Amino acid sequence: MITTEEEAVAAAERIAERLREDVVARDAANENPDREVQLIREAGLLPILVPAELGGGGLDWSAVLRVVRPILRADASIGHVLAYHYLNSWRTILNDRSDRVHDLWADTARHGWFWGGAGNPRDEGLVLTPDGDGYRVSGRKFFATGASVADRITASGTVAGTGEKLAIVIDGRADGVTHPLDWQNMGQRLSASGSVTFENVAVPAAHVLGASDQEGAGYRPFASLSILFFQLLLSHLHVGIAEGAIEAAAGYARSATKPWPTSGVDSALKDPYILGTLGELVAATRASDALVWRATELATAAVAKGWDLTDGERGELAIEITAAKVDSTRTVLDVTSRAFELTGARATTTSHGFDRFWRNARTITLHDPVVYKSKELGEYVLTGAYPTPSKYS
Amino acid sequence: MITTEEEAVAAAERIAERLREDVVARDAANENPDREVQLIREAGLLPILVPAELGGGGLDWSAVLRVVRPILRADASIGHVLAYHYLNSWRTILNDRSDRVHDLWADTARHGWFWGGAGNPRDEGLVLTPDGDGYRVSGRKFFATGASVADRITASGTVAGTGEKLAIVIDGRADGVTHPLDWQNMGQRLSASGSVTFENVAVPAAHVLGASDQEGAGYRPFASLSILFFQLLLSHLHVGIAEGAIEAAAGYARSATKPWPTSGVDSALKDPYILGTLGELVAATRASDALVWRATELATAAVAKGWDLTDGERGELAIEITAAKVDSTRTVLDVTSRAFELTGARATTTSHGFDRFWRNARTITLHDPVVYKSKELGEYVLTGAYPTPSKYS
Amino acid sequence: MITTEEEAVAAAERIAERLREDVVARDAANENPDREVQLIREAGLLPILVPAELGGGGLDWSAVLRVVRPILRADASIGHVLAYHYLNSWRTILNDRSDRVHDLWADTARHGWFWGGAGNPRDEGLVLTPDGDGYRVSGRKFFATGASVADRITASGTVAGTGEKLAIVIDGRADGVTHPLDWQNMGQRLSASGSVTFENVAVPAAHVLGASDQEGAGYRPFASLSILFFQLLLSHLHVGIAEGAIEAAAGYARSATKPWPTSGVDSALKDPYILGTLGELVAATRASDALVWRATELATAAVAKGWDLTDGERGELAIEITAAKVDSTRTVLDVTSRAFELTGARATTTSHGFDRFWRNARTITLHDPVVYKSKELGEYVLTGAYPTPSKYS
Amino acid sequence: MITTEEEAVAAAERIAERLREDVVARDAANENPDREVQLIREAGLLPILVPAELGGGGLDWSAVLRVVRPILRADASIGHVLAYHYLNSWRTILNDRSDRVHDLWADTARHGWFWGGAGNPRDEGLVLTPDGDGYRVSGRKFFATGASVADRITASGTVAGTGEKLAIVIDGRADGVTHPLDWQNMGQRLSASGSVTFENVAVPAAHVLGASDQEGAGYRPFASLSILFFQLLLSHLHVGIAEGAIEAAAGYARSATKPWPTSGVDSALKDPYILGTLGELVAATRASDALVWRATELATAAVAKGWDLTDGERGELAIEITAAKVDSTRTVLDVTSRAFELTGARATTTSHGFDRFWRNARTITLHDPVVYKSKELGEYVLTGAYPTPSKYS
Repeated sequence: MITTEEEAVAAAERIAERLREDVVARDAANENPDREVQLIREAGLLPILVPAELGGGGLDWSAVLRVVRPILRADASIGHVLAYHYLNSWRTILNDRSDRVHDLWADTARHGWFWGGAGNPRDEGLVLTPDGDGYRVSGRKFFATGASVADRITASGTVAGTGEKLAIVIDGRADGVTHPLDWQNMGQRLSASGSVTFENVAVPAAHVLGASDQEGAGYRPFASLSILFFQLLLSHLHVGIAEGAIEAAAGYARSATKPWPTSGVDSALKDPYILGTLGELVAATRASDALVWRATELATAAVAKGWDLTDGERGELAIEITAAKVDSTRTVLDVTSRAFELTGARATTTSHGFDRFWRNARTITLHDPVVYKSKELGEYVLTGAYPTPSKYS
Repeated sequence: MITTEEEAVAAAERIAERLREDVVARDAANENPDREVQLIREAGLLPILVPAELGGGGLDWSAVLRVVRPILRADASIGHVLAYHYLNSWRTILNDRSDRVHDLWADTARHGWFWGGAGNPRDEGLVLTPDGDGYRVSGRKFFATGASVADRITASGTVAGTGEKLAIVIDGRADGVTHPLDWQNMGQRLSASGSVTFENVAVPAAHVLGASDQEGAGYRPFASLSILFFQLLLSHLHVGIAEGAIEAAAGYARSATKPWPTSGVDSALKDPYILGTLGELVAATRASDALVWRATELATAAVAKGWDLTDGERGELAIEITAAKVDSTRTVLDVTSRAFELTGARATTTSHGFDRFWRNARTITLHDPVVYKSKELGEYVLTGAYPTPSKYS
Repeated sequence: MITTEEEAVAAAERIAERLREDVVARDAANENPDREVQLIREAGLLPILVPAELGGGGLDWSAVLRVVRPILRADASIGHVLAYHYLNSWRTILNDRSDRVHDLWADTARHGWFWGGAGNPRDEGLVLTPDGDGYRVSGRKFFATGASVADRITASGTVAGTGEKLAIVIDGRADGVTHPLDWQNMGQRLSASGSVTFENVAVPAAHVLGASDQEGAGYRPFASLSILFFQLLLSHLHVGIAEGAIEAAAGYARSATKPWPTSGVDSALKDPYILGTLGELVAATRASDALVWRATELATAAVAKGWDLTDGERGELAIEITAAKVDSTRTVLDVTSRAFELTGARATTTSHGFDRFWRNARTITLHDPVVYKSKELGEYVLTGAYPTPSKYS
Repeated sequence: MITTEEEAVAAAERIAERLREDVVARDAANENPDREVQLIREAGLLPILVPAELGGGGLDWSAVLRVVRPILRADASIGHVLAYHYLNSWRTILNDRSDRVHDLWADTARHGWFWGGAGNPRDEGLVLTPDGDGYRVSGRKFFATGASVADRITASGTVAGTGEKLAIVIDGRADGVTHPLDWQNMGQRLSASGSVTFENVAVPAAHVLGASDQEGAGYRPFASLSILFFQLLLSHLHVGIAEGAIEAAAGYARSATKPWPTSGVDSALKDPYILGTLGELVAATRASDALVWRATELATAAVAKGWDLTDGERGELAIEITAAKVDSTRTVLDVTSRAFELTGARATTTSHGFDRFWRNARTITLHDPVVYKSKELGEYVLTGAYPTPSKYS
């Protein structure tokens, strides 16, 4: 059992090393990341956010995100599913029936469960039909990151007839769960982000977590942390991808970029433009990184407050995360495109696969339109109003 | 025989329509563009730059580039090989033995020859061994755009022993010519830009075009137009790719982009940010386009001057083309990345293949490091010195 | 009488030379540009757009804008009032009573009249009271560029009681015309862009030009060219200011910028970053310039069509001018700020006054919010709709 | 005596409020900031960095920079001289004769001394002539920020004959010290950054601090912190100016920006473009701010290590500060120019003086060419080499 950040980071770095070896081939093959998740499971990294008293690693969110980072750099898809695993397992606590979460967490630690999610807010909702003291769930969700490799899937559904909305957990291996494996996209190709369909899948009472109160009239600040954490994780993805792109381009430049004939220098490492451009990319990435961590510390503190979290504290956190999202979006798009200025034309072969950084960045930065995040930030500065808690804010 | 710009543009638009239909699949398959070139051949577009008195279309360079543009928009790889075809066939006239070019051009018109090139200046040169009144050529060239689909290949070689440098033409179907088809790159995937090897390939006297005088002490302005035209074509590629990306993204936005929940509008076509961003991309593209055409008109006029072209005229042309290259590089990188802001996350599926625009742009903009073009431009403005004619200027 | 473009450009260049000598001091003093206008009057440049048969220079708009450009480079304020002079005198023809314009133009040629305008659409309108066969006009207009140095002021007013809207011309020296000289702004300080008040000022019948039909139900394409020309002139201002900033910074760099200690070069003229940056600025400026001239040629052709101008032709022109405005706005803001990278800290003294380029640019680019121009352009590309003719489009 | 950060920040905020009231008028008047410094002196803010045991406030550098920030936002010139005051008084400790510093610091606390500097490395050095057990100093220094309002001036000089280089302190009120008040520049106009001349000025032994070992063979990490702190302060200036510009533009937008006619909204506070732009500016500023503080915490820790500071620790700090400088430079230039998009044309009057933010930013960002900072950062990433300690690194 991993119980310290140091051990966890070291394990993550070993995994990153393994992933980096064949990331280009795996990106091209676009298969379901079963082996990658198994690698992480075997390293013992899946339960590090579970409280120690429930058999987990007992790390906090800041520590967990420091663990995720090296994996994001090496293979942003796998870092993505891992980060979402932590969030999907953790956010079960943000609902009414938090009493039912301890068993889920203990089992996560005991069995090394991997968690996915099926909550894309722009789809039709899932339908719940009462069945004994539990339910049966049916429906389809797109962009269900991690679901196709998950032991447990975090979701929500609406009870047929009553219209009651309930947070639920679905056994990813249960009868009636199918994964079309239809995530055939230009980036984040190994992020298992395809659709999932549920056909009359059993949801026992122990997996019914009650109302979530994330938005609307009955909104509660702590319950609504879920959406903020998704936005925070996206910012970590952005920075991790930018760092990975710089690492890869700098590595290539060190060994393979030839000095340009009219540069007047005998090594690409002395080319003033390569150096200057690299410096600009690194500076932007460090700034985005600093803001992402500032937001992460605020988020970790918010978690510690639990249900005592106030509206204002939730609002301040939302604003900091929003700023991090806006800023890191610009950074990662710029970095992953300009990094090629360090490498030159010969680095465009598919064997290097350096385009994956931009493809990953361009895909994940479209999660929700960043300009509406800028707008929320502008509204806050002009009017003092925090973003209205919603599916994306 | 196509002899007017109107006919030629209409034919090009029909080809563009055909290419657009399966460009995504062909981009993924990454095969040698034999069928695409055949399509263009059958449309009669290959000899339009050949003088009318030699049986060609008799169009000038400005007209020819207006013909290439729709193809660039639809499939930048194919537009690329086509543009290079015109340049590789035409630039034979820029050498000492221009008397030998008329037959080559007449045959181009008669047989519908396609021309490739094998001239990457950063490789070892080809070696010529005297053989009768001609030569045998051996060696390898990388980035030999169009060579693998070419009837004739424009090249140059150094005579073993004497060191004399000669422009030559090589029969692309001759014994000893092999194409490893090793262009497995992230962009411009159908541009037939792999390497070519020559093993003791016969080069008859009629294919030996003499000294080229493109640079160095004996440099002559007209002879050195070749390199400027390559740079000009690259700028056309940039603008064509940007136009194609805008066209594709706007097409998607018209039919498929959903209005964002918090946008307050009922159609993506009314989303202020989508509209504003599109306008910015279009404005930048139009500006780059205007400069590219200004440079093209200057280039067409320079061709008309022939060997009377002066140093100063060559210099002014070089500066205008350089400016067009620098500006269009920025535009196409920006446009192809930001165009996704019009379409959103669902447009990232590989079935749409919208990432090809950026992949094409990022690949072709690395042809030679654009910052050294900016440097030349800066030197000119500060000191009045035109770029020194060379392999890239 | 100047009747050729060459003479006119030569005269403009001499004036530019004079203006450049003390532009910094005049910018600081912020006085009404009486002497500057007198200089231009004496050079014979005021009537060059007046038809030759009415005693003017007979140049077309393209020629006139080539004349304005050197003055814009040297002193953007004075280029501004001069460009507006041409437009304010010319746009009198765009109204119902074009029969009354010939005398006004002939007098412009005969007396060397300078024309200003008082038409800011965001103010209250001027009120016209019938007085014999003419009117009396009262009211106040802000941003009345050129009015305070004008012999004649182009304006429009609403007839009290009837609500009829009429284009009028006002004698700038008449009783009741006062100029508060309240243009105390950070840029375009000598552009005489303050307010003007009219108190019961006589407007004889010969100065009443009838309905203007620029927008709304009775809109006529030719009548509405006025607003497009204002937008076109703004784009010329942008490019002229950018060219001026580059010229000034390059001039300083040539003589005064010291090589940076760690640059490894013995002259700032060899500093790779100074050269590269300058090249980028020049490339962007040339691209904006090319688009502005393409729009200008279209505009000159539209003028030649007169009342036969169609909706579609007006629309195409509007789009090209809009693109030029959007693109040149970005260019001039970037160039005037980054030009300092060529000069370094010592160039920030007020004696050099190099900040005037950015101050001018930032002021004039706010004429109307450029993002709404981008929006119109985006709407056109997405929907095919031309901008609705209005006060700003 | 102020001894807590809270008191100090509160005092700084009161001063900021006072300064904001007439900053536009004082910026225009460009006088020596005697009254402003007196205001700060009276508030008791000058000795807060002096150790408590010497009668000072005992705050550390992080706290002191939190105190400076509100003043930077309100009046960047005054924040500039204040930040430099702290550095000029503190950096006396970085020399051989640290035993002589305690008296200087105690006197700073006792008398409320204000410290300036006279150390611009690109000028000729000052000359020291032995005089008793002290020296006489002569020479001239440019860009001597704060010297003209200083009680004590930190400097260094070379002993005539021996060539020994010594750190010294000069009494700013002593005979022979003259201030031409020649800082007539476009930005940071009240920063007292003109030249200072010394004519045979007495430097008693107590003011001779010995060798400084900042660079070259005998370089010591702690001694060389001085230059890093100057760079760090510049980054704080950048962020403070950006924050000030946003504050001012948002304030104007709240009360005075009119909704644009075609915006479809009834208040500028709802204009999607104003909100989106503001959000982008805020996000970039927050990211720069986060990085600046991360660097500041590292710097404060480095100070705590004193002479035990290692090469590697100094190097890591240099890199983080360099990244902060590069990133904040881009941010402040962008923010201060684009902030006008929130306000529109009417906000360009000199009465608002909103151009001062860009003028301040553009001036201070030229302190040393930022691209050479990017280059150092790139070198570090490519080669692992820390910047060589020098006058600017």
